[in-house]
Amino acid sequence: MAAASAATPEPIVYGQYTVPHFSEMVNFSVGQPASTMLPLDKIRQAAAKKFAETDVTFLQYGVVSGYEVFRKSLAAFLAKHYKRDVDPERLFATNGVTGGLTLLCSLFTTAGDSVVVEAPSYFLALNIFKELGLKVKEVGIDEEGMDVDALEALCKAGEAPRVVYTVPTFHNPTGYTMSPARREKLVALAEEYGFVVFADEVYQLLGFADTPEPPPSLCTYDKSEKGCVVSLGSFSKILAPALRMGWYEAHPALLARVAESGQLDSSGGINPVISGIVQVALDDGLQEEHLKAVKAELGARAKKLSSELEKQLPEGCSFAPIGGGYFVWIKLPEGVEGAPLLAHAAHSHKVRFLPGTKFGGPQLSGRIRLSISFYPPEGIEVGVARLAEAIRTFVANGCKPVAGDEALKAAAGTR
Amino acid sequence: MAAASAATPEPIVYGQYTVPHFSEMVNFSVGQPASTMLPLDKIRQAAAKKFAETDVTFLQYGVVSGYEVFRKSLAAFLAKHYKRDVDPERLFATNGVTGGLTLLCSLFTTAGDSVVVEAPSYFLALNIFKELGLKVKEVGIDEEGMDVDALEALCKAGEAPRVVYTVPTFHNPTGYTMSPARREKLVALAEEYGFVVFADEVYQLLGFADTPEPPPSLCTYDKSEKGCVVSLGSFSKILAPALRMGWYEAHPALLARVAESGQLDSSGGINPVISGIVQVALDDGLQEEHLKAVKAELGARAKKLSSELEKQLPEGCSFAPIGGGYFVWIKLPEGVEGAPLLAHAAHSHKVRFLPGTKFGGPQLSGRIRLSISFYPPEGIEVGVARLAEAIRTFVANGCKPVAGDEALKAAAGTR
Repeated sequence: MAAASAATPEPIVYGQYTVPHFSEMVNFSVGQPASTMLPLDKIRQAAAKKFAETDVTFLQYGVVSGYEVFRKSLAAFLAKHYKRDVDPERLFATNGVTGGLTLLCSLFTTAGDSVVVEAPSYFLALNIFKELGLKVKEVGIDEEGMDVDALEALCKAGEAPRVVYTVPTFHNPTGYTMSPARREKLVALAEEYGFVVFADEVYQLLGFADTPEPPPSLCTYDKSEKGCVVSLGSFSKILAPALRMGWYEAHPALLARVAESGQLDSSGGINPVISGIVQVALDDGLQEEHLKAVKAELGARAKKLSSELEKQLPEGCSFAPIGGGYFVWIKLPEGVEGAPLLAHAAHSHKVRFLPGTKFGGPQLSGRIRLSISFYPPEGIEVGVARLAEAIRTFVANGCKPVAGDEALKAAAGTR
Repeated sequence: MAAASAATPEPIVYGQYTVPHFSEMVNFSVGQPASTMLPLDKIRQAAAKKFAETDVTFLQYGVVSGYEVFRKSLAAFLAKHYKRDVDPERLFATNGVTGGLTLLCSLFTTAGDSVVVEAPSYFLALNIFKELGLKVKEVGIDEEGMDVDALEALCKAGEAPRVVYTVPTFHNPTGYTMSPARREKLVALAEEYGFVVFADEVYQLLGFADTPEPPPSLCTYDKSEKGCVVSLGSFSKILAPALRMGWYEAHPALLARVAESGQLDSSGGINPVISGIVQVALDDGLQEEHLKAVKAELGARAKKLSSELEKQLPEGCSFAPIGGGYFVWIKLPEGVEGAPLLAHAAHSHKVRFLPGTKFGGPQLSGRIRLSISFYPPEGIEVGVARLAEAIRTFVANGCKPVAGDEALKAAAGTR
């Protein structure tokens, strides 16, 4: 069939990164859903149903906050999982956490304002804050979540920020979840000192079976008169990243400030066509079915990763139990630093990860982050074996890079 | 069929605004495509073909600049219409002019920087600049486009801006098109004084038959080493607003600054799924066919509007010939101001428009903008008759609002 072969077009490259097979490299830094978690069949089905409609105003400039049926369908879905009422008037369609966060910052902050973040924190959010000219101040985080006492001390010292950015549930990179008591205190501080909290809750719905459910999303705690918390949700990890679809949940007064912005007055709804497809996926149970499958698969991978780490990592390493989300945060043996270890591991052991310092200051040098999501169990097993061997040989070499490692240092920042 | 009727769900409201039938109100401020220009059948067809593909990475975080096949298809389409080569490496997928403009401002400016705009200029762009804390400085515009001599004078006085924002072709609200000589001079000034030009070219492809073609898009004139012009294109007026899909065309060095931003590193491509649908619409000639239909329909409406204005407007009114795009800019008789005229027209004559002062300072008070796009010829005829009558009665009343007009003033800003 030479003719047919000649007519076959080049395959289209859609993805942001090309990730090699794990036999070549296990790249534990990849924070993307695996291909098996991308439900093309379901999106195809939802799109076909939505496009079978005949109202051409589906293609017009859309309702600014997202059209009502989408918000009602989303509210019903969230209410089921959050086990509380969700008001469609407190929802607002965004194009994912990243776009949503940037829009909020452009409306609620001015260059020079300060934003408090957890240290460590999601490094790409930090880049966004820096681009907008915001001053980033760090407070610590432990297994109960953000150190809200440190935040209170800042506020009392007259250094209350304009904004606090937090990943309260299954935090990136640590996997930690903020306790109910700290959530309450954070919201009380926001009300008292007049800052607003942007809660990145992309992992809120990704708690695993047999682990305690996370506390309610942060906006649940906001009982203030004018609102002080915006919870940012996303379909990227529960449906598909390429949709660029997410939502805010917040007090209507906060959402009104977004709706009145010049940007949205000009564009109408942020992502109307996709929100139509997602609405069908919500209404027809496709989202529900996919979320169940994703949680099961992530949970199984987390379990496998956890047991391999326990079995294989050398003495001196430790990590917290993985309750949900995408990440595990590993403490390296005393004296081992993540960045030079990465250069060694990538060069000599075909394994990669993100060093702790990618997420904040030098106090994080003894930590690394692994992602759970991308590799199947056999890849995880191979990857952990390589990581363990890399740590051992690195320690045996006096915690110094070995010959050839240095050449790879430049590439060490890659996700 | 009572049972079927009971089962029929409420119709979904998709649109940002509900526009009444022209018998009730002719709202010449609506700058949206008419329903007849929204090609749901074509988008449905393109979506079905794209979703029939089987590569699940279509749903992954996408290539940051937009995937290559999309950029190649767009380049081929633009090359045909621009009658010059278009390099896919100089294209970058955005989510429309509004999103694209906001992203550029967040990367190329800091609060306090100054941006020079034409007076009048697109008022929603002005709102975006103000939200970002930019200082807006105005220079004039005439039938040859932006007053680049005034811009030069500013630069020579040491007040060169960080950014110039312009709508070079079929300008909003005036409909004017910048001449080749002024385009050259603007780009030369950008290079000499180190500012960057954001050219909003949403109407570039909407020139009407029997009128001179507009000069090439502004980036065509940029021969500088590192680039000083970003041309912003959009599918909103040539395909559908709800897609939220557009593009940059610029020197690769400028696009690299966008690609390296924290926001896009986090989100991947800005609008991957929609760009897939649009790629098929481009490849299969659906975009081409629709653009032809849209230009014909807009051209016919412009002709009708033009002839009705000539026939019906009272003495002292004037307007420039309409060569393309969405708008006509009308000079009112001496002493008539747009804002109180609007209150009178909306209250007593069932017709609306945008007063000139919506687009800039008090020097624009004697102008109004009408949109060509929304009404069919019979609506245009009725609307112009009402407008002419409104002007006559307003003038007869000594250019003062009549009883009852004032109550409507508050609503006069509505598009």
